[in-house]
Amino acid sequence: MTTQDIQVQGRLWLHSGGRDILGPGRAELLEHIRETGSITQAAKRMGMSYKSAWDAVDAMNQALGRAVVDSSTGGNRGGGSRLSPAGEQLLAEYTRLVTQHQAWLLAASAEIIRRLD
Amino acid sequence: MTTQDIQVQGRLWLHSGGRDILGPGRAELLEHIRETGSITQAAKRMGMSYKSAWDAVDAMNQALGRAVVDSSTGGNRGGGSRLSPAGEQLLAEYTRLVTQHQAWLLAASAEIIRRLD
Repeated sequence: MTTQDIQVQGRLWLHSGGRDILGPGRAELLEHIRETGSITQAAKRMGMSYKSAWDAVDAMNQALGRAVVDSSTGGNRGGGSRLSPAGEQLLAEYTRLVTQHQAWLLAASAEIIRRLD
Repeated sequence: MTTQDIQVQGRLWLHSGGRDILGPGRAELLEHIRETGSITQAAKRMGMSYKSAWDAVDAMNQALGRAVVDSSTGGNRGGGSRLSPAGEQLLAEYTRLVTQHQAWLLAASAEIIRRLD
């Protein structure tokens, strides 16, 4: 069996009460909102419509029971959006889990190669 | 933050040389082939076309570099299919990994609930 290059890959999602809170796509969206300060700009970077991005943010808010993004309106430069403290914490914890998970996946890859060899 | 019921969920895939070998869907297909002795019956149980099921088997064979399913033709009851030894081993190792992964996910769920609380 050609097993030397088998890789175990995986993805993580956070759920609550049967609802998706966050997965790879929404985490990327939150990162872009943090970087651009704008749901509109974040949506553009993701190749999503504004409505899809806003719906994703709303779904996160609902599933978590708290706002993950704070938006302001008006001012000289128009409105802006940034992660709420709850949103920052959620993204940080998800990112930390993904990092730990990558280590688990590497160990699993080494183990399955050894076992199938 | 409503965090008491946060669950970390995840999925695993085996890749080789940039190609998918096996993930949740293909593992389920192999289980149905083992149970029914037939790609046609397995496809029906999955709600897939025979062609899609056969293409999935062929993609596994190509990615692994060995046949995961042995098919025979003819005989009184027509042809049948069963997992090859390599297919049995691959499915067993994937299933073992998924079981270990579930334990990791449970521990991760407990940890994220504790950290977000």
